[in-house]
Amino acid sequence: MHAFIGEFFGSMTLILFGDGVVANVLLQRSKGKDGGWMVIATGWGLAVMVAVFVANAMGSPGADINPAVTVAKWVMGMYTDPAVVGGFILAQIAGCFAGGVLVWLMYLPHWKVTDDPGLKQAVFCTAPAINHPVGNIISEVIGTIALIVGIGAIVSAGDIAGGMLPFLVGGLVWAIGLSLGGPTGYAINPARDLGPRLAHAILPIAGKGASGWGYAWVPIVGPVLGACIGAYMWMQLM
Amino acid sequence: MHAFIGEFFGSMTLILFGDGVVANVLLQRSKGKDGGWMVIATGWGLAVMVAVFVANAMGSPGADINPAVTVAKWVMGMYTDPAVVGGFILAQIAGCFAGGVLVWLMYLPHWKVTDDPGLKQAVFCTAPAINHPVGNIISEVIGTIALIVGIGAIVSAGDIAGGMLPFLVGGLVWAIGLSLGGPTGYAINPARDLGPRLAHAILPIAGKGASGWGYAWVPIVGPVLGACIGAYMWMQLM
Amino acid sequence: MHAFIGEFFGSMTLILFGDGVVANVLLQRSKGKDGGWMVIATGWGLAVMVAVFVANAMGSPGADINPAVTVAKWVMGMYTDPAVVGGFILAQIAGCFAGGVLVWLMYLPHWKVTDDPGLKQAVFCTAPAINHPVGNIISEVIGTIALIVGIGAIVSAGDIAGGMLPFLVGGLVWAIGLSLGGPTGYAINPARDLGPRLAHAILPIAGKGASGWGYAWVPIVGPVLGACIGAYMWMQLM
Amino acid sequence: MHAFIGEFFGSMTLILFGDGVVANVLLQRSKGKDGGWMVIATGWGLAVMVAVFVANAMGSPGADINPAVTVAKWVMGMYTDPAVVGGFILAQIAGCFAGGVLVWLMYLPHWKVTDDPGLKQAVFCTAPAINHPVGNIISEVIGTIALIVGIGAIVSAGDIAGGMLPFLVGGLVWAIGLSLGGPTGYAINPARDLGPRLAHAILPIAGKGASGWGYAWVPIVGPVLGACIGAYMWMQLM
Repeated sequence: MHAFIGEFFGSMTLILFGDGVVANVLLQRSKGKDGGWMVIATGWGLAVMVAVFVANAMGSPGADINPAVTVAKWVMGMYTDPAVVGGFILAQIAGCFAGGVLVWLMYLPHWKVTDDPGLKQAVFCTAPAINHPVGNIISEVIGTIALIVGIGAIVSAGDIAGGMLPFLVGGLVWAIGLSLGGPTGYAINPARDLGPRLAHAILPIAGKGASGWGYAWVPIVGPVLGACIGAYMWMQLM
Repeated sequence: MHAFIGEFFGSMTLILFGDGVVANVLLQRSKGKDGGWMVIATGWGLAVMVAVFVANAMGSPGADINPAVTVAKWVMGMYTDPAVVGGFILAQIAGCFAGGVLVWLMYLPHWKVTDDPGLKQAVFCTAPAINHPVGNIISEVIGTIALIVGIGAIVSAGDIAGGMLPFLVGGLVWAIGLSLGGPTGYAINPARDLGPRLAHAILPIAGKGASGWGYAWVPIVGPVLGACIGAYMWMQLM
Repeated sequence: MHAFIGEFFGSMTLILFGDGVVANVLLQRSKGKDGGWMVIATGWGLAVMVAVFVANAMGSPGADINPAVTVAKWVMGMYTDPAVVGGFILAQIAGCFAGGVLVWLMYLPHWKVTDDPGLKQAVFCTAPAINHPVGNIISEVIGTIALIVGIGAIVSAGDIAGGMLPFLVGGLVWAIGLSLGGPTGYAINPARDLGPRLAHAILPIAGKGASGWGYAWVPIVGPVLGACIGAYMWMQLM
Repeated sequence: MHAFIGEFFGSMTLILFGDGVVANVLLQRSKGKDGGWMVIATGWGLAVMVAVFVANAMGSPGADINPAVTVAKWVMGMYTDPAVVGGFILAQIAGCFAGGVLVWLMYLPHWKVTDDPGLKQAVFCTAPAINHPVGNIISEVIGTIALIVGIGAIVSAGDIAGGMLPFLVGGLVWAIGLSLGGPTGYAINPARDLGPRLAHAILPIAGKGASGWGYAWVPIVGPVLGACIGAYMWMQLM
């Protein structure tokens, strides 16, 4: 039970910080307006670091905070009970939804003054730079393989002082954002995209537009596929 | 007594570096002029790292350097003597005031050449991006909860080499700045705002304007409220 | 055998992230477009960190992922079998080629919309800011000496927790990129340049131009020369 | 003897990277041109990290690489032999001079294409944003006190894994650059300014102008004064 709570609060923290940095850069009159990709990628990397610390502290020592990570561990045999896997994924989606609500509250006066509904949607969920389903899926698959193999490599280094592990995993996501985030905005996590997209759809955000459901399958299918491939590669190569 | 000295010098260091980076980005003809939000948030994160090292070295092993942290610890039962709590808060405000004086001296020739009094005030204390008391309080409350829960999560990781703890807490504040700093400039610390605001009011800063006292209650009430909620959440969830 | 696999996958990871960050900043309509040198140098530094973790995990504890490093170790007597040296270098070039293929796939829709063939080539391999063979060779030699001596200095510090070593070596390459990357784009690694240049020449990249073979000898000769000088300096001074 | 060699090569490394990042941002047609203050401050912070590793590896366990640090240690009684103090300072100035020569070679084709002689001088040595001797001295004094007290605080944390100490000291200088570098470009090190200024005066740099000797006393007197005050403060407060 503690692990579900940890996954919920870790995922909530991930989106509060991760979608928060996008809000800071995109929303009108925000102090970080137009801060650029360095701000966004650094913010998401640190979001992962803080979220892993919170998930750990709240009872989830694995700190998956990402259904792709949970699925990869399942494929690798680290989870055997489907109820645990399903429970983790539900807790992650719910946590990411709650994080989206917090970002809406955090930037409350800024929605009304931002005209472009596309920017408002972009705070909550990913959209492709160029709409190209095959290319977009490839990007999310490669990004998620890099995440899964990267986490495996960091964890297997073994003699890391526990407190530095969240920092290094954050560094991995910082790298993914800087290098692999260009084409799709690197969901690499189905809950990170679906949870806040639901929040965008439900919340009374001033002047919001569509929630982009036509694209919503890509950041689910791509990361799950990438997780399976990444887990398989890891098992073959280790 | 040593702990009060540590809180004073740690808080002074926090503002020397924290308000210093704002001066560097905002004041006319400064070499970091228009460096952007990345410079500001990174500078504040490192300011916390250096300040925690200084507070520790000068005798305060807890290195609160923030009344919100001191209040949260009090709520959690980590302090029992109100005189200690009050003494810490006074030392923090005094240290932040002294830090404001140092920033004034550090950037001495730059006040006169900067025309906008609003920029000069922004070096010392926070102001909302959009004046919206309810939204501003919500932002400061959420930011401070994130700070309190985040510190708790980092400290409870347990096996961090002592010297890396200030770095990780600095990383947490780096994250808060990048992601949650957009609406109010993330005071998340009543002394960080009140101390330098007093310095701005008292110092003979060339061409200064008003000190923004009408907003001064927000960065006090918000962080104290956030500290209480964060401490309560921490006790319930741990 | 494991070490060759580790060198291959480590080098592939290096280019996926390293050339990936250049693609993100240079290719039209990428989300990191015009992110600037901070994005590029930070991305390459983190690319090295992730690549060293992957190389270690996949079986290469030395994690050279760079023929210049392998040559320097050979000069220092850390390798004695020329077949190992040759095998490492081949694995590194093949891995860097594969990384170039991954970057092409990762940014698949972006090649067609980017008009300038020079930008497309710059994703894969280095080109001098100013064409000046003597100056360019000097830059690559100094940069590679800094890499070899820097790695030696970090490794010889001795009591680093194993998991932080890839972070510190990544920090060294971050520093080299920020400070020494201006004139030639800091190949400092013959495989990093040759492998993706081959990929650029072979892949059906939309609207690509020449692969710049006239310059290709500089990022091979410069780093190998720098590796020999750096190894010799290290042996004399330690 | 080994310690002098370590101070020489550490100081040379400091300037190769530190002045190198300024060259990258200021010189015409450099790839990092106009990278901004974030690039400069991050580059200098990492320069310190790499330089401390090199100084340590080459035989100077203290890794002062700065006459201000050497003077502060002398004031604190950590050195007693004036010949050691003098030898360290000479090695530091010589190393900084050699580093300036390396930067000239590193960016060899870029001097001719850069028109402004002021930018060329700024690569080598500091100049004030606003010429104001009293204010400039105050800035250098405060910056150097922050350096001395900060190093003391980091070192006294005690249980830092040795390999992370150079990283944390680099983080301190990163912070000083971001927050306190605006008015004078933070020499905070007499050798860092004097050595490369001599190199600028002597080297046949294409199209160079004056070496700014009229200001050269400030980055010597300020840091030495700051070192004495910082050392005295440290002794009183610890």
